[in-house]
Amino acid sequence: MTAPAAHSAAITEAGPFERLLALVAEDLALVNALIAERMASEHAPRIPEISAHLIEAGGKRLRPILTLAASRLCDYTGADQIKLAATVEFIHTATLLHDDVVDQSAKRRGRATANILWDNKSSVLVGDYLFARAFQLMVETGSLEVLAILSNASAVIAEGEVLQLTTARDLTTDKARYDQVIRGKTAALFAAATEVGGVIAGADAARLTALRTFGDGLGMAFQLTDDLLDYGGSSAALGKNTGDDFREGKVTLPVILAFGRADDEARAFWRRTIGRGKQQPGDLEQAMAYLRQTDALAGTQAAARGHADRALAALAGFKAGAMRTALEDIAEFVVARTV
Amino acid sequence: MTAPAAHSAAITEAGPFERLLALVAEDLALVNALIAERMASEHAPRIPEISAHLIEAGGKRLRPILTLAASRLCDYTGADQIKLAATVEFIHTATLLHDDVVDQSAKRRGRATANILWDNKSSVLVGDYLFARAFQLMVETGSLEVLAILSNASAVIAEGEVLQLTTARDLTTDKARYDQVIRGKTAALFAAATEVGGVIAGADAARLTALRTFGDGLGMAFQLTDDLLDYGGSSAALGKNTGDDFREGKVTLPVILAFGRADDEARAFWRRTIGRGKQQPGDLEQAMAYLRQTDALAGTQAAARGHADRALAALAGFKAGAMRTALEDIAEFVVARTV
Repeated sequence: MTAPAAHSAAITEAGPFERLLALVAEDLALVNALIAERMASEHAPRIPEISAHLIEAGGKRLRPILTLAASRLCDYTGADQIKLAATVEFIHTATLLHDDVVDQSAKRRGRATANILWDNKSSVLVGDYLFARAFQLMVETGSLEVLAILSNASAVIAEGEVLQLTTARDLTTDKARYDQVIRGKTAALFAAATEVGGVIAGADAARLTALRTFGDGLGMAFQLTDDLLDYGGSSAALGKNTGDDFREGKVTLPVILAFGRADDEARAFWRRTIGRGKQQPGDLEQAMAYLRQTDALAGTQAAARGHADRALAALAGFKAGAMRTALEDIAEFVVARTV
Repeated sequence: MTAPAAHSAAITEAGPFERLLALVAEDLALVNALIAERMASEHAPRIPEISAHLIEAGGKRLRPILTLAASRLCDYTGADQIKLAATVEFIHTATLLHDDVVDQSAKRRGRATANILWDNKSSVLVGDYLFARAFQLMVETGSLEVLAILSNASAVIAEGEVLQLTTARDLTTDKARYDQVIRGKTAALFAAATEVGGVIAGADAARLTALRTFGDGLGMAFQLTDDLLDYGGSSAALGKNTGDDFREGKVTLPVILAFGRADDEARAFWRRTIGRGKQQPGDLEQAMAYLRQTDALAGTQAAARGHADRALAALAGFKAGAMRTALEDIAEFVVARTV
């Protein structure tokens, strides 16, 4: 039942994501075919089993779509955007496999994670395999600039994840350190995905910087909005999916802002619930009250908006048209979304 | 006391490894300095802590030494061999970090493993970081051929490790499948390490093939000898470190050969002890008796010798001299060693 429903929704009320998707649909079909071909392994059938479980689970393919869109925005007429988009998706999938081991996650995209269905070992090694496959694909494009950008992004991603491990439950984390964490978690790959689309199109330095800024702004806005939605969004209304970050003791921007503006009683509350992880019934409601009182949710929303504005401004130098409009709409959508 | 003792041993009875080391000692000092510089992380101090724990624990640096030696054998006069050797050591270290998570190892190079001292999460992510750093270093050499060789090797390594997971306790594993496992585990990186040394020296195709064959033969011989030594070597005398593979149910070449030549009673024994992992006191001694009766240890030694001979033959086209002699001696040493 799921597929037809999603299909008709796409036809009847195409949102910003569906409009962007429609502009790169032919390319994306080629990317999907290449992904299926390259995740195969002659000798180890478990590799495509695990990769397919995750890759075919219906992720939005946002990152490879950004690569395709960026190359088209720069009037690229070659075919290497297909390899680069597959590269970006492989790197993303590899990080998801390793993330699920690190976070001991049981669900991803509505399905049991590979570390649960198979084991941590397979998730670690298949992630390594996909990472190696990503670099093989990049080598085929013959662009050292692309290799530099995506190997740098890979280092920032891993560094951000290690930093996140060491900031968990650490209420001394400030906004600058948190920005580094989410840049690694999300924005670094968004920025690289858009920049490499320009690189293969032969875009000049100013445009490459603009594409990189667009991806970075979009990624930062996306992640900060995720952090906000975990506390029910700017309205701070409790929803069924709210409070996961609080229960896990994650020090996200809402908590950083609230803790920075807290009185002694509130500080003691955050230290107990987040710092020491001692939580009891009613704590989430109390946390929401503190977040409202200190304008921490509005502050997070403003930060996300600022990044979205940076992303929008970066597009200004590109020629007007359906692709630029679609990318502008995505930047607006990322901060306006409620799920 | 350890350092002075090792130092005097190196002076009084320099073995094949020490003689090779002496030929590349200046380069290796530069490699070690570059490794220390590049494993740093501005934002995540845990990264160099963990990397240093493993990298400075006194591994032999055999793989980077092979890269340095191969470049010198081809009369290379540039400086990129330093970056490539550091690359090779980073890839090796990344695989060790992930291996220790996969195998749940508690000791490596005589010290507690990073997954024990810190946690599995850190080992996974720091491995990813070192892998990304390896690719950044390669990009700096500007050689797409080098990037192709080492990304291919990385894929073979990960594929071999996944294959090893799925062959554990599987007595239907044949020699061909086992060769793929150990090629991934050891020979693929040896082969890439020697080949890239020739690539930066501008060696012709025949020499690159010879260097690759040398590394592959050396790696295969090295790993098969390890498997043999785990059963006490060709003499099959029980030593204090023998039997680990048997206790862990690993299907290595000695077991594959013995199982293939076993009568019904012996097959039942292997199925119980390796296939189902049901072991009792006296089983290791019984396993050793079967290995002797079926000439499985001699067969493994002959296979290792065959790979060493391949490695030696591959060196024949290079000019005679101290470096070629040192590499020939290493190939002999790898199969002759008793530890």
